[in-house]
Amino acid sequence: MIIVMRRGAPDAAVQQVVERLEAAGYGAHVSRGVETTIIGAIGAKDEDKPVLAQQLETLPHVDRVVPILRPYKLVSREANPEPPPIALGPEAAVGGTKLAVIAGPCAVETREQVLEAARAVKAAGACALRGGVVKPRTSPYEFTGLGHEGLAYLEEARAETGLPICSEVMNIGQIEWLAERLDVLQIGARNMTNFDLLREVGRVGKPVLLKRGFASTIEEWLKAAEYVATGGNLRIILCERGIRTFETALRNTLDVGAVFVAKRETHLPVIVDPSHASGHAAAVPPLALAGVAAGADGLLVEVHPHPGEARCDGPQSLTPEGFRDLMARVRAVAEAVGRTA
Amino acid sequence: MIIVMRRGAPDAAVQQVVERLEAAGYGAHVSRGVETTIIGAIGAKDEDKPVLAQQLETLPHVDRVVPILRPYKLVSREANPEPPPIALGPEAAVGGTKLAVIAGPCAVETREQVLEAARAVKAAGACALRGGVVKPRTSPYEFTGLGHEGLAYLEEARAETGLPICSEVMNIGQIEWLAERLDVLQIGARNMTNFDLLREVGRVGKPVLLKRGFASTIEEWLKAAEYVATGGNLRIILCERGIRTFETALRNTLDVGAVFVAKRETHLPVIVDPSHASGHAAAVPPLALAGVAAGADGLLVEVHPHPGEARCDGPQSLTPEGFRDLMARVRAVAEAVGRTA
Amino acid sequence: MIIVMRRGAPDAAVQQVVERLEAAGYGAHVSRGVETTIIGAIGAKDEDKPVLAQQLETLPHVDRVVPILRPYKLVSREANPEPPPIALGPEAAVGGTKLAVIAGPCAVETREQVLEAARAVKAAGACALRGGVVKPRTSPYEFTGLGHEGLAYLEEARAETGLPICSEVMNIGQIEWLAERLDVLQIGARNMTNFDLLREVGRVGKPVLLKRGFASTIEEWLKAAEYVATGGNLRIILCERGIRTFETALRNTLDVGAVFVAKRETHLPVIVDPSHASGHAAAVPPLALAGVAAGADGLLVEVHPHPGEARCDGPQSLTPEGFRDLMARVRAVAEAVGRTA
Amino acid sequence: MIIVMRRGAPDAAVQQVVERLEAAGYGAHVSRGVETTIIGAIGAKDEDKPVLAQQLETLPHVDRVVPILRPYKLVSREANPEPPPIALGPEAAVGGTKLAVIAGPCAVETREQVLEAARAVKAAGACALRGGVVKPRTSPYEFTGLGHEGLAYLEEARAETGLPICSEVMNIGQIEWLAERLDVLQIGARNMTNFDLLREVGRVGKPVLLKRGFASTIEEWLKAAEYVATGGNLRIILCERGIRTFETALRNTLDVGAVFVAKRETHLPVIVDPSHASGHAAAVPPLALAGVAAGADGLLVEVHPHPGEARCDGPQSLTPEGFRDLMARVRAVAEAVGRTA
Repeated sequence: MIIVMRRGAPDAAVQQVVERLEAAGYGAHVSRGVETTIIGAIGAKDEDKPVLAQQLETLPHVDRVVPILRPYKLVSREANPEPPPIALGPEAAVGGTKLAVIAGPCAVETREQVLEAARAVKAAGACALRGGVVKPRTSPYEFTGLGHEGLAYLEEARAETGLPICSEVMNIGQIEWLAERLDVLQIGARNMTNFDLLREVGRVGKPVLLKRGFASTIEEWLKAAEYVATGGNLRIILCERGIRTFETALRNTLDVGAVFVAKRETHLPVIVDPSHASGHAAAVPPLALAGVAAGADGLLVEVHPHPGEARCDGPQSLTPEGFRDLMARVRAVAEAVGRTA
Repeated sequence: MIIVMRRGAPDAAVQQVVERLEAAGYGAHVSRGVETTIIGAIGAKDEDKPVLAQQLETLPHVDRVVPILRPYKLVSREANPEPPPIALGPEAAVGGTKLAVIAGPCAVETREQVLEAARAVKAAGACALRGGVVKPRTSPYEFTGLGHEGLAYLEEARAETGLPICSEVMNIGQIEWLAERLDVLQIGARNMTNFDLLREVGRVGKPVLLKRGFASTIEEWLKAAEYVATGGNLRIILCERGIRTFETALRNTLDVGAVFVAKRETHLPVIVDPSHASGHAAAVPPLALAGVAAGADGLLVEVHPHPGEARCDGPQSLTPEGFRDLMARVRAVAEAVGRTA
Repeated sequence: MIIVMRRGAPDAAVQQVVERLEAAGYGAHVSRGVETTIIGAIGAKDEDKPVLAQQLETLPHVDRVVPILRPYKLVSREANPEPPPIALGPEAAVGGTKLAVIAGPCAVETREQVLEAARAVKAAGACALRGGVVKPRTSPYEFTGLGHEGLAYLEEARAETGLPICSEVMNIGQIEWLAERLDVLQIGARNMTNFDLLREVGRVGKPVLLKRGFASTIEEWLKAAEYVATGGNLRIILCERGIRTFETALRNTLDVGAVFVAKRETHLPVIVDPSHASGHAAAVPPLALAGVAAGADGLLVEVHPHPGEARCDGPQSLTPEGFRDLMARVRAVAEAVGRTA
Repeated sequence: MIIVMRRGAPDAAVQQVVERLEAAGYGAHVSRGVETTIIGAIGAKDEDKPVLAQQLETLPHVDRVVPILRPYKLVSREANPEPPPIALGPEAAVGGTKLAVIAGPCAVETREQVLEAARAVKAAGACALRGGVVKPRTSPYEFTGLGHEGLAYLEEARAETGLPICSEVMNIGQIEWLAERLDVLQIGARNMTNFDLLREVGRVGKPVLLKRGFASTIEEWLKAAEYVATGGNLRIILCERGIRTFETALRNTLDVGAVFVAKRETHLPVIVDPSHASGHAAAVPPLALAGVAAGADGLLVEVHPHPGEARCDGPQSLTPEGFRDLMARVRAVAEAVGRTA
């Protein structure tokens, strides 16, 4: 990190910073400019850094502390320049040439609904089935999921179709009963900064699908992935799902540039969720294709046999026919960018 | 709600909306304009509304559904036009003429630190002590709190000073051991949409301090309060703590207008946290005074005996002297707006 | 528009709204619900609407006024369901099956630079040349453009390559000398709400490339287009160039969903500017391809023969080689979505 | 500035940066850390800096360039630690102990309206009169101002009340006829980055009221002020008027922290516009008081004799009575923070 002193800072103030750095085991490299003095801190001790930076900011005549190194290591591109794809099941993987399309209903509502959706997405070319059994809702009056019953329906759908199943884990208490039976554990956008939960799923031996918080920077997202990785689990799939901005024509703003940045910075695969990003079925195909063109390794798409009867997120759900059409278009764009789908 | 049809929608499409509304128990009021037709849905059944609105949006020729009623009732101003103050302890309350200033360190770090902070904030006029014993952090390398040991220090500080104690509850599993011993349960900004947690604290008989999520709208914040209220607990204190915007000169942007809006819409007291909003001790006084002038019922302020040694949030912590000075200024502004502090 | 009354509004207040509407030539359609009363205003007189809505909001017991119709007509999709492409020159057009790629340097710096850039982008398949001769800068110490000299270089490049030329017009005074000699008049993001300028370019018989303001909603962008259209000029090309959000990893956040929304709402072609959206050459290809996949009708790309010596925006400028590579990839994605490039 | 090299950058790449810096007249200070190398550039030549920083970013193995010095000098606090107040007229000034409240209608509509407003705001204690004679509107169907006729009404109001008059200048062509007759030239939020206009008003010998762009950072705002200052005019009054965020309960989010930051960074007075920030008369008093409590040097408030008949911004306009009440409350808060009003 670099400590920038205020203009006119006396030598004693510079010296105090130097001593504080040295006491913390850093080398200090003082550089006096025409208008200001800066001090480079040399020697990385990650554990101490955030708090040391904060403490240095409280010293007199310190203007600000500029971090130089990125706050993630295990997930950084340098740590693993040629990562293998992450297997979701015997025939499904994310991060290879073939795009991974995970599809299914927002929420598991009935046995028939899940089975119908599973058959449809399988037939259209999805590689895994999604469906929420516990749902985070923004109002006390909304549907909160079928729980164990819903999980059983997902398992039945997996048994019939062979599709690995992916569902959200909302709190630590759910890990025990969900982690064992799911193939992919999804951490929802609202839980991206729930560090207790991140730490626990980092100890589970299953792939984790980590959605970006809708108000989280890319750096915060990658720090969350680092949190999971410190638990020993590096099978992390990043999922960009739109961010909150001043624009409300669609529900969120898909940050397609985040696909580029996350892939440049880390060795993790990145997929795109056009359904939550848009909130609107007609907008799902353009956003899905944009994600693929930008280099995403896959998609997370909501598909419901009867969107008009969905208990959640009907407006953004594709019908089975809509999804089949989308897959044809995804395949064409995938090939245009040197991949398959 | 109002259903707006697309321009040129055929009568059959309008009729389909009407039938769907009637089937759901609503009256439908069709109004044909020059360019478009709108349908008013009359008769409120809150439980069904969000999902029905979504389902209507999937119907052909429906342009959009405009909600008319606000998505909260129990906490609305109409529900309780003259609410009594919420007691935090025998001598402390939020929502009356006297402002409630809750102060203390970000995190409980040592016994001495907490006791020193408690004595200082008591002497300066705070009415309650804050201090985190479990900490949500944004990096795996940061301090995560002392847990039970920290809680014991808070209790000791309460015993000595008489100040009620306030601390954050981060997950359901912590409610059991924290709720009984704390006087105020804080729900942090990151957990404002953790509905499992909101539901559980709604069943506890202790005041809840509900921070606004840094990317949550006021409406979402009030819906979160409604969620707590549906559990039976109406002793909810709202806390505005800054929102994430494009501006980064301070850590967040204090939304001082949210104090006005939240108080206009609900019967709940609203306090302001200038420490998290700014991230910077020198900016705490102007933001604190702004909050009081805008009508806030109190403040949540970070105070640390030695900010330069703080294990978290040192740069935004006031020293005891800084806090004493702030309180004198708060008192002056409070009196200017017809209150005391 | 719909006027929503506050809960418990007396009949007299409803009547006052009705009378005000009728006095303004509207029909009023009162609908009394269980909790509130709403009044639909029927009969559209666009000129009066914004101010009438504001005036109604000042009446007692009025909660809010909800607009129903969109604030643009001339540019709406209904007004022109099958628009012909907009010709930029004898062989270049935007809005047809073939994508229009407009490329060139941020600023015209020297005669050689422009000619070299023009030859390179022509060879790679661009259909028009861009280059700023007057530059809006964010600091008094930045390069502000060559003016008339720069325009002459653009004209020389056009004469040599046959490429139509596109450049920004920053104020009304520049229209006279720029409009006659340019083929496309660009309105920059900062001027999207400069209504004097919009009105004047609406009177010029040249295509207008209207960039979206980086903090403007899509609706505001389309209202700006409507402003141009009211001057009689419907040859408007919309250009999405990224919006300002809390994310700063790239310069702006490309709102790829805006391509979908703007094309659904209007009959205008929409192109994407990946250079300004990202601020970073390596990010230009993924964003460009995302735009094409999302349905954009073209691209606006910065290309500089020697980015390291550019007097503005070097970091986001492609080299001629980089642009040639991009065009090959654009062609592949264009074909995947049923177009050519 | 600091040039941060990528991890593993070869010596030759570091050397290339050093040579480039030295060629530009800078000293280069290389600091090799454990994981990365950084290069400090010593010696400030402001004119070259922005473009040099961009050019350095294009060099191989350069990760990023971190600016150290702030991009404004003339307006910085160090440049003028004890600035005198800025006189608006014989008896009105901004920046002293006494707050400056500038009030009046959004737009000059009629002679009677302006005179009535002027008398009312004078009686209530305003020190200057505002009123738009040219209006920037967001729709082609809105009122665009009375022009010269409106200016004459303002002058008549000045003659009668003695209040200096303040109005917006929207383009360079208006400077000639407006600058001579107005006492304060307002640059609207939409024009904050109109650098042609800033440069020209910097050459005029009248105080400039520079509104912050609703999507501009504080740093960009201060750069805009620097732009005015480079023309020789240092009589600049900054005006915070709310920024665009995801929150839409009020029209904008008043960034009360910006008052603190702008005053810490510059020697310019800062006032607050609660009317545009909120868009809603009932919200004006809390925001106005918040601004004063946060340290603002004054207010800009919309007052209309008959808000329900206003041709623009009626919902946010105070009545004369409302303004009189506000002034009493402003006086109380001003005294609480050691000022008068």
